[in-house]
Amino acid sequence: MKVFIAGIDGYLGWPLAVYLTAHGHEVAGADLMLRREWVAEVGGTSAQPIEDRDTRLQAFKEKFGKDLDFRVGDLTDYDFVKGFFEEFQPEAVVHLGQMPSAPYSMIDQQHCVWTQQNNVVNNLNLLWAIKEVVPDAHLVKLGTMGEYGTPNVDIPEGFFEVEFRGRKDKLPFPRQAGSWYHQSKVHDSHNTHFASKMWGTRATDIMQGVVFGTQIEEMGDDMRLRSRLDFDQCFGTAINRFCCQAIVGHPLTLFGVGKQKRGFLPLVDSMACLRLAVENPPEEGEFRVFNQFENAYTITELAEMVQEVGAEIGLNVEIKHYDNPRKELEEHYYNPDRQHLIDLGYEPTHDIKSVMKQTMLDLMDNKHLIEEHIEALVPDIRWDSTRKKSVIIDEKTEA
Amino acid sequence: MKVFIAGIDGYLGWPLAVYLTAHGHEVAGADLMLRREWVAEVGGTSAQPIEDRDTRLQAFKEKFGKDLDFRVGDLTDYDFVKGFFEEFQPEAVVHLGQMPSAPYSMIDQQHCVWTQQNNVVNNLNLLWAIKEVVPDAHLVKLGTMGEYGTPNVDIPEGFFEVEFRGRKDKLPFPRQAGSWYHQSKVHDSHNTHFASKMWGTRATDIMQGVVFGTQIEEMGDDMRLRSRLDFDQCFGTAINRFCCQAIVGHPLTLFGVGKQKRGFLPLVDSMACLRLAVENPPEEGEFRVFNQFENAYTITELAEMVQEVGAEIGLNVEIKHYDNPRKELEEHYYNPDRQHLIDLGYEPTHDIKSVMKQTMLDLMDNKHLIEEHIEALVPDIRWDSTRKKSVIIDEKTEA
Repeated sequence: MKVFIAGIDGYLGWPLAVYLTAHGHEVAGADLMLRREWVAEVGGTSAQPIEDRDTRLQAFKEKFGKDLDFRVGDLTDYDFVKGFFEEFQPEAVVHLGQMPSAPYSMIDQQHCVWTQQNNVVNNLNLLWAIKEVVPDAHLVKLGTMGEYGTPNVDIPEGFFEVEFRGRKDKLPFPRQAGSWYHQSKVHDSHNTHFASKMWGTRATDIMQGVVFGTQIEEMGDDMRLRSRLDFDQCFGTAINRFCCQAIVGHPLTLFGVGKQKRGFLPLVDSMACLRLAVENPPEEGEFRVFNQFENAYTITELAEMVQEVGAEIGLNVEIKHYDNPRKELEEHYYNPDRQHLIDLGYEPTHDIKSVMKQTMLDLMDNKHLIEEHIEALVPDIRWDSTRKKSVIIDEKTEA
Repeated sequence: MKVFIAGIDGYLGWPLAVYLTAHGHEVAGADLMLRREWVAEVGGTSAQPIEDRDTRLQAFKEKFGKDLDFRVGDLTDYDFVKGFFEEFQPEAVVHLGQMPSAPYSMIDQQHCVWTQQNNVVNNLNLLWAIKEVVPDAHLVKLGTMGEYGTPNVDIPEGFFEVEFRGRKDKLPFPRQAGSWYHQSKVHDSHNTHFASKMWGTRATDIMQGVVFGTQIEEMGDDMRLRSRLDFDQCFGTAINRFCCQAIVGHPLTLFGVGKQKRGFLPLVDSMACLRLAVENPPEEGEFRVFNQFENAYTITELAEMVQEVGAEIGLNVEIKHYDNPRKELEEHYYNPDRQHLIDLGYEPTHDIKSVMKQTMLDLMDNKHLIEEHIEALVPDIRWDSTRKKSVIIDEKTEA
């Protein structure tokens, strides 16, 4: 299948290009290469060294014996998107090309507005280019489990049957996102659903959990094919950050009570799920929502697993509570469904500790990269848009 | 109270400046004057002649004995918004400054993207300027009843108690908007709610019905104080369009079966409701939703009222069914709540026929303006983004 990847230079985009190509698909993609700048802006770097575009493309060619059509371009420029689609004629479009960080979007007015403008406009452009160039193509849109927030009821996959004052309807499940970034994904979900209703666009809206891990099997031993791994407060995600903290002897940073529960999944599961979505397109006009995660864990459970795995490889890992820079519930009900992907054949990894171990071992050789950016490990971007470094607190004072 | 009006040159913005000033408030506002350009772009004009900004300001000064601080500026320019707030120090901000047309947003990719970018960014800027300059000020945000779409259950005011799989929660009522414009208002509602939760912003999100009418008492006999009234397919709203069609002998244009039901309210009710919202601010951190309309009517009921009122003033008014350029349910359940404003003292007009009569009589003297733009009366912007003039159909073929 011809698959266009928006955001092909990213943490998920690059591995997906490798993964789908290894599984027989023809891939092309675009990226504005901004992720590398953002991470530098907030004082981070990739803990797993990554190559520049030319070297990635060279490694790709050596591995697969063909060129990858990976263009540097701006998805908010409609002419660029439409022109690329006219040439490539994608059958599926996987949209990973957005600003993906909650804290980054909370820094100030400029970062908030930029995030929403960029994400909303580039998703609209992909919808329009599909409509105008390849109306039968399938948009696989990366959303986030964070769109739902933490309601006090089960979280279905996108829609639920409700009875209200004696009448029934199937309605979109309400979204209560917790950052300007997460709100941008909510806007995208609404826009994408509307395109399906108006134009018959085939769309899968992926409410993905938090991804972690350094590699997928399809990369083989070629380090030039590895993906980035961030650990800073903005672009590092929970387990990846914990793994990085563990290997440099920094306490794992639980925010507040640490009972926040979220869906998580290894990088390999994310790839497998995106492939399932691509290879099983919805009907014309169908807007389907997948909740995509291996399982739901509290942050404390994950930190304790990293601690345990760390001990196995000789690391003495401390866990500390920090004052929470975010405004969020620190203890709450959380029970999201995850059936649609299972129905398509998704087999969750289950043994996530082995992925944590692999991640830590992979990062060990270059742990100086983390040590050189040690300040990035503790957050200072607060949800009231002030800046104040979080400090270690007594867990009980926050409970 | 010091009230900032965003979109002070518009159909609602200008009357509100007059109305609130007449009721003792100190008003300032901004407008980029785009409405006048958009209406010209789609081949329309105001059926009620309106003055340029200087003449409006002169008339305002003669009426109230003071200057109105009405600046031409772009609300997507944060420095402009923030600077104005620093000078004026508003206690309430009424946000009417957006692109308000569903068909205009459906024209093509450019109009769609422009609408969402403009509306989302300017609302974010007002939220940020309130947070950074006047955190105690109250945002009165104009949304639309169209955010809800036409669900098969009652429509509460913003939130509802649901039971799902044996657990209960109070959740935002799902939004299912029917155009890119309406979607932009849904995005704004989510962003505004989030600001209240994160920053404690006081906000009233007004889900307003469709407004009609030419004047409010507070304008007196000075024609220079009158507001615009549009009748084109984009910026003309149902009853106003029907009144214009009636006085030039054009059939009233029902779309499809004509059983679409919506909330409607006279201009004077809109002013009264906005004043109630301004004068009764919510608590710190409170995000409240008002469904704002006089009553809900089907399009056919309204057309028949215009026909009846037309007969009283000697007009022979025909009603015709046109093929529907929109994609929408033409017969559906519709039962929205409207209690919050009643609780604050809103007294609905009830006798809307007298407002229809006043509107028609007001427009009669300048009916040549409508005749000169007669092509604007029948729509051609379709929800699949093609252009094709609607034609008269046999009602039964669509049922």
